[in-house]
Amino acid sequence: MNSFQEYLDTVNRAISTIPYPEQPSQLYEPIAYHMALGGKRVRPVLTLMACDALGGDLLVALDAAVGIEMFHNFTLLHDDVMDNADVRRGKPTVHRRWNDNTAILSGDTMLTIATQYIAGTGNWQVMDLYNKTAIEIYEGQQWDMDFEQRNDVTVDEYINMIRLKTSVLLGCALKAGALIAKASDADCAHIYDAGVNMGLAFQLMDDMLDVWGDPKTFGKEIGGDIMNNKKTFLLINAMQLAKGDDADELRHWLNDPYTTREDKVPAVTAIYERLGVRQLAQDAIARYNELAIASFNQVKMSDEDKQAFISLANKLAGRNY
Amino acid sequence: MNSFQEYLDTVNRAISTIPYPEQPSQLYEPIAYHMALGGKRVRPVLTLMACDALGGDLLVALDAAVGIEMFHNFTLLHDDVMDNADVRRGKPTVHRRWNDNTAILSGDTMLTIATQYIAGTGNWQVMDLYNKTAIEIYEGQQWDMDFEQRNDVTVDEYINMIRLKTSVLLGCALKAGALIAKASDADCAHIYDAGVNMGLAFQLMDDMLDVWGDPKTFGKEIGGDIMNNKKTFLLINAMQLAKGDDADELRHWLNDPYTTREDKVPAVTAIYERLGVRQLAQDAIARYNELAIASFNQVKMSDEDKQAFISLANKLAGRNY
Repeated sequence: MNSFQEYLDTVNRAISTIPYPEQPSQLYEPIAYHMALGGKRVRPVLTLMACDALGGDLLVALDAAVGIEMFHNFTLLHDDVMDNADVRRGKPTVHRRWNDNTAILSGDTMLTIATQYIAGTGNWQVMDLYNKTAIEIYEGQQWDMDFEQRNDVTVDEYINMIRLKTSVLLGCALKAGALIAKASDADCAHIYDAGVNMGLAFQLMDDMLDVWGDPKTFGKEIGGDIMNNKKTFLLINAMQLAKGDDADELRHWLNDPYTTREDKVPAVTAIYERLGVRQLAQDAIARYNELAIASFNQVKMSDEDKQAFISLANKLAGRNY
Repeated sequence: MNSFQEYLDTVNRAISTIPYPEQPSQLYEPIAYHMALGGKRVRPVLTLMACDALGGDLLVALDAAVGIEMFHNFTLLHDDVMDNADVRRGKPTVHRRWNDNTAILSGDTMLTIATQYIAGTGNWQVMDLYNKTAIEIYEGQQWDMDFEQRNDVTVDEYINMIRLKTSVLLGCALKAGALIAKASDADCAHIYDAGVNMGLAFQLMDDMLDVWGDPKTFGKEIGGDIMNNKKTFLLINAMQLAKGDDADELRHWLNDPYTTREDKVPAVTAIYERLGVRQLAQDAIARYNELAIASFNQVKMSDEDKQAFISLANKLAGRNY
């Protein structure tokens, strides 16, 4: 197995040389712009790692990898329209730099380009997995939007939402590599489960970084979720645990429309600390990370390769970026 | 070959029994609503007709037919958002009845469901044709939006735009049926060309119906294109042909923001009549219809089946709905 960086270089080379047509430029320039914003590229690297560890053809896996990363970026593009987000990775979002219509249509085009890359594998199991995963991700996004209107979201509902919205794509990325390597059904299932649990830890860490992340490496302003009253793992648990004065204070910060960022973010963060939800989140991340490691350990591959996956899982579950 | 109505019944039965999941209802209800708005269902019927005429398996073709109709309806859903349209087939559009975010996400879901139906054929040639066609349709939509900002659009550019935005999907619908029937490359090419030319005649007739259609059967208010200064075949030709007083009057109607529908629509229609662009459009429709018929005649199938396609082409080129 190669290093993460070597797979990443392969993925970045493939993405930066995608031959977009020149015209109509208003359709393809936003796609090239959005894809060039970068990102961790974790998903396509997972596809290459899984395929390589299980003895598959990396050139075929590269088509799946690029398709999955293109799909992921399509969801970000449309999410930015739906969330009315101004900034992505430190630059203006497509719908800000161009407009909503451009973002909608360029996003649609990215979804079909992604499907073309998936079709490039010539593997119907990968195509079916990809489509099923896409549907789950839309469902997750819909639940996320539904939750904005509700005050009774449970932790289980939240975990199911992030499983759909975020985690299944990591499972899909790994399993696609395994399918291309013609791995056994059992190995495909184990590596998929590993990806889903890794994704849950990954998203819960995202919730934590929004509160306790390092502004220098996080890429977004700290406290965005708090300012938006976003029902994260932290807020849902806090709403359930807060009693007496804590409950009154939390209710105040959630309902007062005149609060400033300078007041609200430190105050809600302090409530989270008092109620112990920071620890709850850390425990949950550790638990999902252990489940991911246990699943990786069940896949039939060399100990060295297992260790590479486990190191990556540990890194993502403990990242500060 | 069965009658148009029999194929249509098959298509409508398949579409009305698509098993959408119940939850999240905010995602799937708009899809079921939009698909139930109806429409002519020309594209899926063309797929079944082509497959049947060339001796293929109709059950496989039905997957392609439903996929293509779902794809077509996805493009309408997102177009309605981009055009800010209030009404489709006499009912509120999805983004009006729900909201823009719902329309974006439900549309994305429809695109992936469409791809699942296409994958259901198990035919990579159909999958590749479908994806290539989808890309062309997005390009056509982008050109259409680009043309709004330009006053120098040529007739050739316009024809190329409607070829991409509308016509290639009719070619795709027919060729998908032919591919499933394992028709020869020549037959696939001829039936595709027939569909594209049929589509050009179809779209030019749409331009005419917006001006001279019967309000009772057209489904939309007459003169919408005129009110929006939409650069149709009629307006582009009129802008090129108008001289002297006609040019001044046309410029007035295009630029005066205070005109009413009651004044503008009859006045611009009268200019079209004076300049002979109504006749130009009729001639173009007849020409593309003849090209479609010539291509159908080159496909190796029974004379009876050829006649069925030719009757349908004539009907669509002469429709008043």
